[in-house]
Amino acid sequence: MRPIITLTTDFGLDDPFVGIMKGVILKIAPEASLVDITHNIEPQNIAQAALVLESAYPWFPTGTVHMLVVDPGVGGSRRPLAVHSRGYYFVAPDNGILSSVLDAEAQCYELTEKEFFLEPVSNTFHGRDVFAPSAGWIAQEKKLFDLGEKINDPQTLDVPQPVVEGRTIRGQIIYIDRFGNLTTNIGAETLHKHLVPNQKPVIQIGEKKIIGLSSSYSEAREDQPSALVNSWNRLEIFVREANAAETLGVRVGDAVSVDSNESES
Amino acid sequence: MRPIITLTTDFGLDDPFVGIMKGVILKIAPEASLVDITHNIEPQNIAQAALVLESAYPWFPTGTVHMLVVDPGVGGSRRPLAVHSRGYYFVAPDNGILSSVLDAEAQCYELTEKEFFLEPVSNTFHGRDVFAPSAGWIAQEKKLFDLGEKINDPQTLDVPQPVVEGRTIRGQIIYIDRFGNLTTNIGAETLHKHLVPNQKPVIQIGEKKIIGLSSSYSEAREDQPSALVNSWNRLEIFVREANAAETLGVRVGDAVSVDSNESES
Amino acid sequence: MRPIITLTTDFGLDDPFVGIMKGVILKIAPEASLVDITHNIEPQNIAQAALVLESAYPWFPTGTVHMLVVDPGVGGSRRPLAVHSRGYYFVAPDNGILSSVLDAEAQCYELTEKEFFLEPVSNTFHGRDVFAPSAGWIAQEKKLFDLGEKINDPQTLDVPQPVVEGRTIRGQIIYIDRFGNLTTNIGAETLHKHLVPNQKPVIQIGEKKIIGLSSSYSEAREDQPSALVNSWNRLEIFVREANAAETLGVRVGDAVSVDSNESES
Repeated sequence: MRPIITLTTDFGLDDPFVGIMKGVILKIAPEASLVDITHNIEPQNIAQAALVLESAYPWFPTGTVHMLVVDPGVGGSRRPLAVHSRGYYFVAPDNGILSSVLDAEAQCYELTEKEFFLEPVSNTFHGRDVFAPSAGWIAQEKKLFDLGEKINDPQTLDVPQPVVEGRTIRGQIIYIDRFGNLTTNIGAETLHKHLVPNQKPVIQIGEKKIIGLSSSYSEAREDQPSALVNSWNRLEIFVREANAAETLGVRVGDAVSVDSNESES
Repeated sequence: MRPIITLTTDFGLDDPFVGIMKGVILKIAPEASLVDITHNIEPQNIAQAALVLESAYPWFPTGTVHMLVVDPGVGGSRRPLAVHSRGYYFVAPDNGILSSVLDAEAQCYELTEKEFFLEPVSNTFHGRDVFAPSAGWIAQEKKLFDLGEKINDPQTLDVPQPVVEGRTIRGQIIYIDRFGNLTTNIGAETLHKHLVPNQKPVIQIGEKKIIGLSSSYSEAREDQPSALVNSWNRLEIFVREANAAETLGVRVGDAVSVDSNESES
Repeated sequence: MRPIITLTTDFGLDDPFVGIMKGVILKIAPEASLVDITHNIEPQNIAQAALVLESAYPWFPTGTVHMLVVDPGVGGSRRPLAVHSRGYYFVAPDNGILSSVLDAEAQCYELTEKEFFLEPVSNTFHGRDVFAPSAGWIAQEKKLFDLGEKINDPQTLDVPQPVVEGRTIRGQIIYIDRFGNLTTNIGAETLHKHLVPNQKPVIQIGEKKIIGLSSSYSEAREDQPSALVNSWNRLEIFVREANAAETLGVRVGDAVSVDSNESES
């Protein structure tokens, strides 16, 4: 079966950087299927890339190599990593970008074996010189322990978790998509566990109150903010056929709270 | 031969949605060649996607599976479709996006067999849960009648047609490309049928008059709007090495007329 | 081994043009791996495309077919070319875009054999009708001499070279990437040859002076412009974790000079 390598970077699509990395990969793994997740991560926004990875990686066949290059520390002392976790491979700088898959079973290796890099390694483009060739070799079934040394202390990010106070869940906006839909860090499970059953939840964002959850975009009213549990299994705020981020003037990090609506039981 | 699946959506390239759909497809059809037509359809602009499909689908080998997801009705009652027409397969929501291939010979199926979907089907991302797996199964040579039930009433769009009044053809701008070139709904055939032979046509857009057709961009004068029959076999208005849409302040839907220039016979 | 075809154009990703060319290629070369270098070359900026090609082509396996379509002269008298140089194939209009590979050993052919084009050839989209099918046939191991006639006078661009005056190297900005990093036309070799050893070079851009070279982005101070030799082996000016082009108000073509810093030996 053809190996699959996905690419997630902040390199954008204007410059030749992504194409160059694919050339390097195909020299090593000529049969690989290369799939772009996105190259439009905000420059050096590691937290955003970590969220994108979390939402995307499990939809691929196991064995897929997920390569991520959002790398403000390139050329410095941060380590390059290869990780095996949950049946997938990951190649990325050790800066927290892999947080969502770094559970207790994850096997983490620092990429130390320079014969698998392009030589000489530049100080500015490890995507080309370190991560692309490593992804290629893993796709060619090279073992991680041949590429480097096992480590037990990979970097992780402090991901903001929702806080439950009495009957109120306090969370925040963690991702805004192309349509302006607002994904929160409040998961479906948290909602189900903490809300009073058979009552419509009241979602508050800024001055706006949204009462109840829609089951789909097309069910919501067009002229006002609505909420639903989205394809990522998280609470999402949207405006039907409009851009909620613009309409509400909301950014990543803004607070969202959810209450049980006791007066309407 | 490797199956080909093309993707046309309004998902943009910033978010992981397109990559996720490709992961789903490759789980089912690991040998497929995946080709992006565009993911920058204006959000929920079904008419634009229908035009893009019309211009792109016939350039692929027959047997190609064209998947389109511009889907404002996701989660509502609109049907998911698979269509076989003119030697190609199409997978898309039943909202008119496939209008250009829905001729009398087209075989249309509603995708009803849920064992070919991802379970549970979300209410917000049928691209991932319904259309991607269906495209994958069709690429794997699953028959359409195994995926659903035949229907005879697919949705079609009212596409604006040019109107001929005496010697005047009245049409409109239907597409503006990256270069700002303005494609009209006036086809080469209509021009040839209704214009007086051996006379230069006079094209009017807003206050501007263009006399005669150029045979190529490089033949036209640089400082003024010109017209030609484009690669899509339609009348196009352009400004050589400039952006006609900006120069002329034109939008999709604006009127264009063509007359025979009798005074110059 | 699967043939590789790369694509570099100014077509953008909003319109279906790139997808259409890929369809044409896959009809002829169904096993080809298609890799986008970029489709966001500034409209008709041949010099920019030539630089992108120079930076990208050697990272691919030899035998790769590099196809470039930035083609303001489409439909006019400029010739379509296929070139074999340095182990790679190139397909492009004869407008200087291939300058970096047109050395004395390069074998250049004008594409004259119309049976390998799509018929009829439009006057506006040779990417679809001439270059895509030619790239496909070359990927299928068709010989260049079967596709056209040898020529010895391909167009080349006058690429601005740095000038050395005494101990001063005078160059210019030739490329600005997504991060706002400024690549100059001053190569590492020129720096090493003309600067006084063991002295920090002084780089001047506009009113700004930068003293010394950083070895990596992460080593530089965050609040001021810095310089290094980049992954392309050229002098680059950057601002750590910021956009140097915006910070400094610099454009392609702006002057940069480098001096040896005699007072600090």
